[in-house]
Amino acid sequence: MVNEAQQSCSGSSSSRSDGSSSGSESSKDNSRCSTPVLDADRHERLREKMRRRQEAGDRWFSLEFFPPRTANGAVNLISRFDRMGAGGPLFIDVTWHPAGDPGSDKETSSMIIANTAVNYCGLETILHMTCSNQTKEDITGHLQKAKRLGLKNIMALRGDPAGEEWQEEADGFNHAVDLVKHIRSEFDDYFDICVAGYPKGHPEAESYETDLRHLKEKVFAGADFIITQLFFRPETFLKFMKDCQAIGITCPIIPGIFPIQGYHSLRQLVKLSKLEVPQEIKDVVEPIKDNDAAIRNYGVELAVSMCRELLDSGMVHGLHFYTLNREVATTEVLKRLGLWKEDPRRPLPWAVSAHPKRRVEDVRPIFWASRPKSYIYRTQEWDDFPNGRWGNSSSPAFGELKDYYLFYLKSKSPREELLKMWGEELTSEESVFEVFTCYITGEPNRNGYKVTCMPWNDDPLATETNLLKDQLEKVNRRGILTINSQPNINGKPSTDPIVGWGPSGGYVFQKAYLEFFTSSEIVTALLKVLKKYELRVNYHIVNVKGQNITNAPDLQPNAVTWGIFPGREIIQPTVVDPVSFLYWKDEAFALWIEQWAKLYEEESPSRMIIQYIHDNYYLVNLVDNDFPLENCLWQVMEDTFELLN
Amino acid sequence: MVNEAQQSCSGSSSSRSDGSSSGSESSKDNSRCSTPVLDADRHERLREKMRRRQEAGDRWFSLEFFPPRTANGAVNLISRFDRMGAGGPLFIDVTWHPAGDPGSDKETSSMIIANTAVNYCGLETILHMTCSNQTKEDITGHLQKAKRLGLKNIMALRGDPAGEEWQEEADGFNHAVDLVKHIRSEFDDYFDICVAGYPKGHPEAESYETDLRHLKEKVFAGADFIITQLFFRPETFLKFMKDCQAIGITCPIIPGIFPIQGYHSLRQLVKLSKLEVPQEIKDVVEPIKDNDAAIRNYGVELAVSMCRELLDSGMVHGLHFYTLNREVATTEVLKRLGLWKEDPRRPLPWAVSAHPKRRVEDVRPIFWASRPKSYIYRTQEWDDFPNGRWGNSSSPAFGELKDYYLFYLKSKSPREELLKMWGEELTSEESVFEVFTCYITGEPNRNGYKVTCMPWNDDPLATETNLLKDQLEKVNRRGILTINSQPNINGKPSTDPIVGWGPSGGYVFQKAYLEFFTSSEIVTALLKVLKKYELRVNYHIVNVKGQNITNAPDLQPNAVTWGIFPGREIIQPTVVDPVSFLYWKDEAFALWIEQWAKLYEEESPSRMIIQYIHDNYYLVNLVDNDFPLENCLWQVMEDTFELLN
Repeated sequence: MVNEAQQSCSGSSSSRSDGSSSGSESSKDNSRCSTPVLDADRHERLREKMRRRQEAGDRWFSLEFFPPRTANGAVNLISRFDRMGAGGPLFIDVTWHPAGDPGSDKETSSMIIANTAVNYCGLETILHMTCSNQTKEDITGHLQKAKRLGLKNIMALRGDPAGEEWQEEADGFNHAVDLVKHIRSEFDDYFDICVAGYPKGHPEAESYETDLRHLKEKVFAGADFIITQLFFRPETFLKFMKDCQAIGITCPIIPGIFPIQGYHSLRQLVKLSKLEVPQEIKDVVEPIKDNDAAIRNYGVELAVSMCRELLDSGMVHGLHFYTLNREVATTEVLKRLGLWKEDPRRPLPWAVSAHPKRRVEDVRPIFWASRPKSYIYRTQEWDDFPNGRWGNSSSPAFGELKDYYLFYLKSKSPREELLKMWGEELTSEESVFEVFTCYITGEPNRNGYKVTCMPWNDDPLATETNLLKDQLEKVNRRGILTINSQPNINGKPSTDPIVGWGPSGGYVFQKAYLEFFTSSEIVTALLKVLKKYELRVNYHIVNVKGQNITNAPDLQPNAVTWGIFPGREIIQPTVVDPVSFLYWKDEAFALWIEQWAKLYEEESPSRMIIQYIHDNYYLVNLVDNDFPLENCLWQVMEDTFELLN
Repeated sequence: MVNEAQQSCSGSSSSRSDGSSSGSESSKDNSRCSTPVLDADRHERLREKMRRRQEAGDRWFSLEFFPPRTANGAVNLISRFDRMGAGGPLFIDVTWHPAGDPGSDKETSSMIIANTAVNYCGLETILHMTCSNQTKEDITGHLQKAKRLGLKNIMALRGDPAGEEWQEEADGFNHAVDLVKHIRSEFDDYFDICVAGYPKGHPEAESYETDLRHLKEKVFAGADFIITQLFFRPETFLKFMKDCQAIGITCPIIPGIFPIQGYHSLRQLVKLSKLEVPQEIKDVVEPIKDNDAAIRNYGVELAVSMCRELLDSGMVHGLHFYTLNREVATTEVLKRLGLWKEDPRRPLPWAVSAHPKRRVEDVRPIFWASRPKSYIYRTQEWDDFPNGRWGNSSSPAFGELKDYYLFYLKSKSPREELLKMWGEELTSEESVFEVFTCYITGEPNRNGYKVTCMPWNDDPLATETNLLKDQLEKVNRRGILTINSQPNINGKPSTDPIVGWGPSGGYVFQKAYLEFFTSSEIVTALLKVLKKYELRVNYHIVNVKGQNITNAPDLQPNAVTWGIFPGREIIQPTVVDPVSFLYWKDEAFALWIEQWAKLYEEESPSRMIIQYIHDNYYLVNLVDNDFPLENCLWQVMEDTFELLN
């Protein structure tokens, strides 16, 4: 919001609607739900979540971001979404920059960034939208596109004037309220609508009182809640809130918090928002204006004390943060307020997409566990998602994954860093084994660099995988190149900090799982060993050409993660599915080439080593079905190595 | 077969088909299955089951029954199906009696008895059908009806001549082969077809060799397997089988075994089948002809030794028994042969219906656990059955259960017996408590009679319920009138003899469940106690008027039985479903009146006591969600009684 310098309606207003707010009506679906609702959040619209949190006395926060300028900036912003999403925001919002082609398909557009936040990061998202200088058709087009992409919330704004001075257009959208009305008339109750409030009054408004009246018009036209412009003193907001209530505005009003992060950004902001910085703040900031760290510390301090005062007033339940796309200050404020959820409850063991079509989704193949965005991308055209059972819903084919450069699938690390981690020059298959081993152990490689990501895994090792670290290290050293694994779990509480998920009071279970690339020599020995484990271990062994060896009965999926909860049906969120494994196989083998081999010159020995592995190794997955017993997969590995010796 | 005196084709045959047997082609569906196949049997047709058992070297048996004359006879036959079904027959067959209106909807007709066997008893069933003296339309009508009812196997027979002498009809069905061809031409490969073979040659055939040729014609016209007429010496069958093979009959040939059960029945049979009893048998039987027990013992002995010889030959894999609707002799033979499966593996904790439409069914509400036939009856019109999740498939309404007299829902015990068990005269609610208590303990009631059934449970207490006997006794004495319960189970092997089900190598789980009627006074105390257990225990409490108290979240079903198996998705065969509980409630309350109150005169004190309970008591169900801990439901009961004191 800050970065748009958006402006509310000014001048005389046209005739208003009858004042009834369609936004306050609940559209809750009363029919029975066919999926066990693990997390009511997944099925509620934003305004309901807000109301429920308020009724429960919960406090929450939200985060505002602006779209990046470059594709690299987009990759960074998306991983910031993932990191800050882990703190548990109620929603994030993405601002709208008319100059940046905000409704386009560019990877930096507001539309695509918001799309990514909803669909790939699973975040409840508000897309800002301005209406000035645009035709009705343009606006409807943007809204239709947003709906198609699964966006459900719009922040309705006027936007900047085209020239220096504001010119009203006869039939155009002159005020945010016109956009609110347009959304309600064209899309009925589909979108939740947010509007902007100005605790000091809009700079262009005739008076504070006139501006309050305009706000009331926006709400009565159908807005569901209000987010305010930033302010510097808590009493500014509290007075504004009381004034709103006094004239009959009853919807939630969320204070916009701006932690001062630097002298320059403060000045720019003040210029854009036409706000005045109080003298007491100037007095602190001016003397330290060249000391960024000092200013940030002061900003955090100031924000924390203001937020505390707001929350203590009892009138404020949620806080909206203007992050300026930075993490440190906001995260610090949230942590000090106790609002940052270090370990937010996971509704499922994987991040649930926030797209309304995917609401019922509660089963996925385990293969994409470390590449959830790729899974979402490849299944985005599905009309139906597995709900309880894998079988039926897996019939639609997986989408192609040719576009390895797609910004949300691309590695976050630049080529130079990857070369340092994975080796400037490979000399043998063993040097590849070393890379895998370093990734597992966290030890630096022979050149002193830590391996923090792999082509199959963009993040450091999961806490859960850490439970298996020693055994994983041992097998990777010997050429069992592991890319995915989970320990067996026999009924741990659903609140377990490492393996828990779902509502409290439940119990979670897992079958041990191990997935790796390995040579045909090892596969030959492994297959002999597996005969001994025929009734206990299910396996799928496949090479890039599609040669496929398995003992899975009738191509049936094997549930490897499940949970039992009070008053609910069984949830089984991950399966080993033989059919989707063959799609995953293509992706997993391609990553050798696309992400690793292509770092090197064509015909270079390094590239040929990776190409050799791609062409000749097998991708293997193993499930130990006997989850109450000690995981036997390590014994299978031992036996295999013994047979080879 | 014995009781139909069916006859194979005689006289010259018309032109034959090209000799290719459509019956030998597999129609296996190669598409992926959306339900975890726990028991391949459920998805195979009879001829495939037979082939698979033969390939696996398994030995099996089948049982033949004829339709009863009276409705009471039908009730008895159906419970015989249940008892003999427990021994694990590969199939049963029901003979066709043209004189008894065999295709009608009468509860004694062949069609309805076969329907009951398939749908209500879950038995793979062959319906016999004769073709003589019937129009093509009649026959097609019967076959269509059989198909509609879920029957998949037909034994194609000629049937008796209309008069004394056989008259060929020009365009009619003169031979069994005509019926085989008709079925294949009208119903393609839908039915598995069985035909009769005569080890001694058909009595009306020109010669043994001619009869063999006719048999070959029936097989080549599309029959899938052969069941033979009875015979008295094993060598008779073995020679017949070799002769069949010699002329190119390769389908399974199943010997028909007739354990001699009495002098009278043996003579009648011989007359009907025109067979000659060997002298060595006559020599034994004649001197003891008035001693039924002695003849039966001899018959069992003879059958066992003949069956052993057949099985030892290596040519015989399955044995077909002519039971004459009696249990003792056949069961004894099977037990001595080791073919009777004392504890056949249960594919699911409830008996799976054999109707093809219900193949995917793998979730049911727990309420009908003791009244599965009522559940099947009330859901017979459903197009779709819950597969994995209860939610979606429960939308069709439950059928009405007005017809309490329906023969397969009726009590097996006559009124006089019920009065002895449940009391000729009730004096108070406490005398009702006593009946429930005696049913649980197995002790005789005050008049010295054991209570072996209840309106809600037609059978003695299940082995599993026995685990809870002491606690159940205690609460029933105090007016908690239990009608359904299960203990909690935390991962017992699927092969556990009491609570196990599904394929071996798996683990089964249960949440503790308790369902009972009780007074409003107890309910009031119970509700206070349940506050302490709010997060742990889910409850539904309802009276006949529909007053409904529950803490189930969002009307969601609660899975109370589930199993984890190697290489499969999770199976959750029983749920507590809040919506179907309200249908069950009507049935459970109605049983007080229909089965109990109506035993007494109108206005009698006994009847008024039952009516009072019906009108004023509540039906309660409780689930303890914390299955790994000790069942807390008994503590809930204790606390309730304490509060009342």
